[in-house]
Amino acid sequence: LMFGIGAVMPAKKTKDSLWGWPAVPAPCRDPCADHTPSAPLSRALTMVNETQHTCSASSSSRSDGGSSSGSESSKDNSRCSTPVLDADRHERLRDKMRRRQDAGDKWFSLEFFPPRTANAAVNLISRFDRMGAGGPLFIDVTWHPAGDPGSDKETSSMIIANTAVNYCGLETILHMTCCNQTKDDITGHLQKAKRLGLKNIMALRGDPAGEEWEEEVDGFNYAVDLVKHIRNEFDDYFDICVAGYPKGHPEAESYEADLRHLKEKVFAGADFVITQLFFRPETFLKFMKDCQAIGITCPIIPGIFPIQGYHSLRQLVKLSKLEVPQEIKDVIEPIKDNDAAIRNYGVELAVSMCRELLDSGMVHGLHFYTLNREVATTEVLKRLGLWKEDPRRPLPWAVSAHPKRRVEDVRPIFWASRPKSYIYRTQEWDDFPNGRWGNSSSPAFGELKDYYLFYLKSKSPREELLKMWGEELTCEESVFEVFTCYITGEPNRNGYKVTCMPWNDDPLATETNLLKDQLEKVNRRGILTINSQPNINGKPSTDPIVGWGPSGGYVFQKAYLEFFTSSEIVTALLKVLKKYELRVNYHIVNVKGQNITNAPDLQPNAVTWGIFPGREIIQPTVVDPVSFLSWKDEAFALWIEQWAKLYEEESPSRMIIQYIHDNYYLVNLVDNDFPLENCLWQVVEDTFELLNSPTQQ
Amino acid sequence: LMFGIGAVMPAKKTKDSLWGWPAVPAPCRDPCADHTPSAPLSRALTMVNETQHTCSASSSSRSDGGSSSGSESSKDNSRCSTPVLDADRHERLRDKMRRRQDAGDKWFSLEFFPPRTANAAVNLISRFDRMGAGGPLFIDVTWHPAGDPGSDKETSSMIIANTAVNYCGLETILHMTCCNQTKDDITGHLQKAKRLGLKNIMALRGDPAGEEWEEEVDGFNYAVDLVKHIRNEFDDYFDICVAGYPKGHPEAESYEADLRHLKEKVFAGADFVITQLFFRPETFLKFMKDCQAIGITCPIIPGIFPIQGYHSLRQLVKLSKLEVPQEIKDVIEPIKDNDAAIRNYGVELAVSMCRELLDSGMVHGLHFYTLNREVATTEVLKRLGLWKEDPRRPLPWAVSAHPKRRVEDVRPIFWASRPKSYIYRTQEWDDFPNGRWGNSSSPAFGELKDYYLFYLKSKSPREELLKMWGEELTCEESVFEVFTCYITGEPNRNGYKVTCMPWNDDPLATETNLLKDQLEKVNRRGILTINSQPNINGKPSTDPIVGWGPSGGYVFQKAYLEFFTSSEIVTALLKVLKKYELRVNYHIVNVKGQNITNAPDLQPNAVTWGIFPGREIIQPTVVDPVSFLSWKDEAFALWIEQWAKLYEEESPSRMIIQYIHDNYYLVNLVDNDFPLENCLWQVVEDTFELLNSPTQQ
Repeated sequence: LMFGIGAVMPAKKTKDSLWGWPAVPAPCRDPCADHTPSAPLSRALTMVNETQHTCSASSSSRSDGGSSSGSESSKDNSRCSTPVLDADRHERLRDKMRRRQDAGDKWFSLEFFPPRTANAAVNLISRFDRMGAGGPLFIDVTWHPAGDPGSDKETSSMIIANTAVNYCGLETILHMTCCNQTKDDITGHLQKAKRLGLKNIMALRGDPAGEEWEEEVDGFNYAVDLVKHIRNEFDDYFDICVAGYPKGHPEAESYEADLRHLKEKVFAGADFVITQLFFRPETFLKFMKDCQAIGITCPIIPGIFPIQGYHSLRQLVKLSKLEVPQEIKDVIEPIKDNDAAIRNYGVELAVSMCRELLDSGMVHGLHFYTLNREVATTEVLKRLGLWKEDPRRPLPWAVSAHPKRRVEDVRPIFWASRPKSYIYRTQEWDDFPNGRWGNSSSPAFGELKDYYLFYLKSKSPREELLKMWGEELTCEESVFEVFTCYITGEPNRNGYKVTCMPWNDDPLATETNLLKDQLEKVNRRGILTINSQPNINGKPSTDPIVGWGPSGGYVFQKAYLEFFTSSEIVTALLKVLKKYELRVNYHIVNVKGQNITNAPDLQPNAVTWGIFPGREIIQPTVVDPVSFLSWKDEAFALWIEQWAKLYEEESPSRMIIQYIHDNYYLVNLVDNDFPLENCLWQVVEDTFELLNSPTQQ
Repeated sequence: LMFGIGAVMPAKKTKDSLWGWPAVPAPCRDPCADHTPSAPLSRALTMVNETQHTCSASSSSRSDGGSSSGSESSKDNSRCSTPVLDADRHERLRDKMRRRQDAGDKWFSLEFFPPRTANAAVNLISRFDRMGAGGPLFIDVTWHPAGDPGSDKETSSMIIANTAVNYCGLETILHMTCCNQTKDDITGHLQKAKRLGLKNIMALRGDPAGEEWEEEVDGFNYAVDLVKHIRNEFDDYFDICVAGYPKGHPEAESYEADLRHLKEKVFAGADFVITQLFFRPETFLKFMKDCQAIGITCPIIPGIFPIQGYHSLRQLVKLSKLEVPQEIKDVIEPIKDNDAAIRNYGVELAVSMCRELLDSGMVHGLHFYTLNREVATTEVLKRLGLWKEDPRRPLPWAVSAHPKRRVEDVRPIFWASRPKSYIYRTQEWDDFPNGRWGNSSSPAFGELKDYYLFYLKSKSPREELLKMWGEELTCEESVFEVFTCYITGEPNRNGYKVTCMPWNDDPLATETNLLKDQLEKVNRRGILTINSQPNINGKPSTDPIVGWGPSGGYVFQKAYLEFFTSSEIVTALLKVLKKYELRVNYHIVNVKGQNITNAPDLQPNAVTWGIFPGREIIQPTVVDPVSFLSWKDEAFALWIEQWAKLYEEESPSRMIIQYIHDNYYLVNLVDNDFPLENCLWQVVEDTFELLNSPTQQ
């Protein structure tokens, strides 16, 4: 999942600034660059910081000048460990925004509202993942006072924002309104947001409850009161956004009075402004100039509303008390029943308005009101060239956006296809293993009892799963077939493609595709693979399939294979593995926790690592014996929770899955000799050969 | 420096136990090994530990059964970080001893006494380094009450033992006598020993001061009192050794009474026994059996005294009140003036006695009274096959034996040739960077003001240094010549070989020899190299030149080059380096601390790392920008302290060195593209080309 990284940077610039390399390394680098050869070096050096121990620090690429952010970020860095691979990961939103602006990189952001039902929440999370891939600088989630927005319900604003940050890795702004609420309520919401890892608040007044609304003395009457409250109670912890009204707030005495209100909000501590939607670029540009004229200097981001349908437009206009310009009405009214036509027009209109805004030189970022829909906004972004699916990854797995978690730089390989579950089960960790697992330091994993938490749930409904995995299973071999179809992508005997498995909600990864033929062969014979990676001996870090991290580096992998299999196969496998001692490390465990391994002590085995210019070594993926036993619980439980429970109790199908759950082993194998050809296929081949040899059977 | 590791292990066994691999991996591994194929796996698995999270721990290779040691060692391991590469490094002496015994590996140890003069101390330290290379399990340092043994004098027992542990990396026993001393004195000595990192005490009575000695009530009258005191005051912190007298202590009422005294000492808490010297193997074997008969079960190590000369034998016999057997006297008396003949006889005698002891099956280790001499003991050990110069290294640099420091697993490359100075300057560190430097965590380096500390001093006296480095320098080029001669090994213009430099007290390392031709070329032209390593792209960890760490692994290096050079060359070099951005990281600093670098932030650059079966990645050597500035102070100061001060003040020679010190730059270069051919020579070549091109000069 790529987001907020290099979205719209030109290639060369991206390469430098993406990874915290000093793009223009300031005083410390190349003092002679501007000197003729005859210029004495001593003069050149007068530009150089002479203080010991701080020289390079002062040559940092940070050009944002945000002093408070600087200290926050250096505090993060002082964890004695994590190499700073990616400045972005350590910056707060306002600094990212400023850095993009200074670098001349254009960006976009996306607004969503909380869903009404749990199923809609599952869909919205998938949408976050898909739209996150285009690289928004942030998303924001609106606050619906009527929907119990601060609660723990899976549809509350708070929980949706939490999910976006922690499980989708998106920089997120949570809206919050203040009118008709007590100070304690608001402080409670803010504390909860902070606890969940939210760092950004959009401070709004909200709609008064009744018609007869009057100001409360010492109450929260305006957004500015909320801004002040946040700054009073939480100091500089949150980045605060406020709303701007290009046409003036409908309830303001005048446009000018509204500008003064905005200035008050900014001077009370807001970091940037997002505007209400508008229909003409000149509306925004005038507003922007007026703001600057009265001394508002923070970023002002235009809110873009691609018209997606007649009714949604009418509703929005009604709510916002805006008037649709006649030239737009003229186009829309005649085609009001043709959704596609309206959407096409909306896209056209948005693209042309956005182009004008960007061309003005006054606009660096665009904020999209998505109405929780994907197509129109994505289309606009693609046509603007702002949608950037960056194949480069800072680490081999998607980094969480939680301010504490973003320093995380090592994970067990087992959860490679279930990152949300990993985050869920480690959410209580005070600290993340910093580049090292160290056997005794692995904190306990939380239990995973509720497989129906909406952010852990399969995207596919029960009926679809039954079609993929079989309405009726007749024997263990029918299970082998499901695994095989998932690997090959071929339809199963009923003509359905198997696009997900209990251990992997998505189709096979590109990297795994490299192993497709071998995987197919072994799954057919009852080696039911759920995770694997090929060995890599020093490919460039920019490799489109296996690359990750800063450019100029080299990435490595040890071959890995993880599968369920029967005890008969395990017995033969163990005999075979004796021939591969030292070369192959294995862990073999059944549901009861009976565990066979040749791993030395309880040490993790690094299976993915990268070597980069001027850095320490990064080893983001390990096979960790301790966490394997936590993973084992989850991996076995998924047979029952996701698969067996599709069938009636006591039904043969359910009993087959139950039998596998009770009797199979979960096996993982690592080939330590990464420079040689992967020997794990030979291990499996030898095992089948042994099983078939007449003397052994 | 190799010591205490695999000294006498047979090849295969060594490979397994050296690195903490489970040699015989106990319950967890290969449950089917002893089962026919038809044996059900479930039965095989009943042998398997079913408890979660502890299975692999119980399969550890530790067969010593020492429970107290187990807890000590696991405490060390709980530092959340350091991969346990080498069980030996984490064990206390008594456990190492027991592990060797259980594995059937024979070992030896060496006894030294403190020197009388500072010069003798420098020589003794060199001897520690040389004899340490043969792999003693430990050395011990005797306690001379008359010589202020607990003081800070460089010749005191305490400081010599401290040097052996901390600077030579040798497991060390400090002797301590107790008679005629107050409880406070003794406690003070023990506290100091603990503070310095000493873990083992040989508890002795010592010789009473006067003839009229009488027991003091509640005083320290016998060694057993000291043993009890150590256990009372320091619990199980120290390993305690006591002396055994194969012929009975000369002052004991009887042989049997003396055996009872020994049993008392052991039961009071001694961990093992070293015996007084003896002349016939049967003397020891009888003593050993008698000890066992009365219930002394701890290890008893025979003290071996190779006769090295007539006078030393007579003196020792007088002191120990032993009688030399007639058959030995008969041989020695006729040749008493022929030192070589006596030594040869002594070696013969010792070898034959040691063989008999080892062949008895009752003896696992031999303790040698060296009299601070090298030749005889080394000869005996080589003939016995116990002297093992193991080319394998646990890490690329020698590990300190300090109980805290032994977990250290990363160092800056700068001190590669000055490890004792690095240890000295980091001796106050509470903690060692554990696998990571992390920019802001680097603790401050102690200053290095006293270059004459005996363990930092050059082994060569002033006259020799003058012959090597020039009685008279005439220009900068005569300095270039010294560097060139050191690299080539050719004699200088006065016919002397240059075998050391201020930055390196030893001849060129084997690894550096790989770069000899290139180094010679650049030194001739004023690139005065003091440190370098070739790039290595995945050589086996057993490679005799660049290998380190457990077998089955792969080691890597980035090419490194460090040198002093003039500002003219630096100016050209900086222009050239622009062509190598990203690929080459550089730090360039002068004595005033003016610092030019393209290193990202203050991050360390890993330049040596290893990938091993079943382990996390080890990155033992880094180029760390912060510590480089501490190294710079030392590297520049060595010009003055070691070289300039050889000459009269105001002399031209001294002024030339002073000029270089004041005006040259210290440069380090890292080629990040380790899989490609080292580009650093090309960088230097390009620099000279630029300097020679007519348009530039």
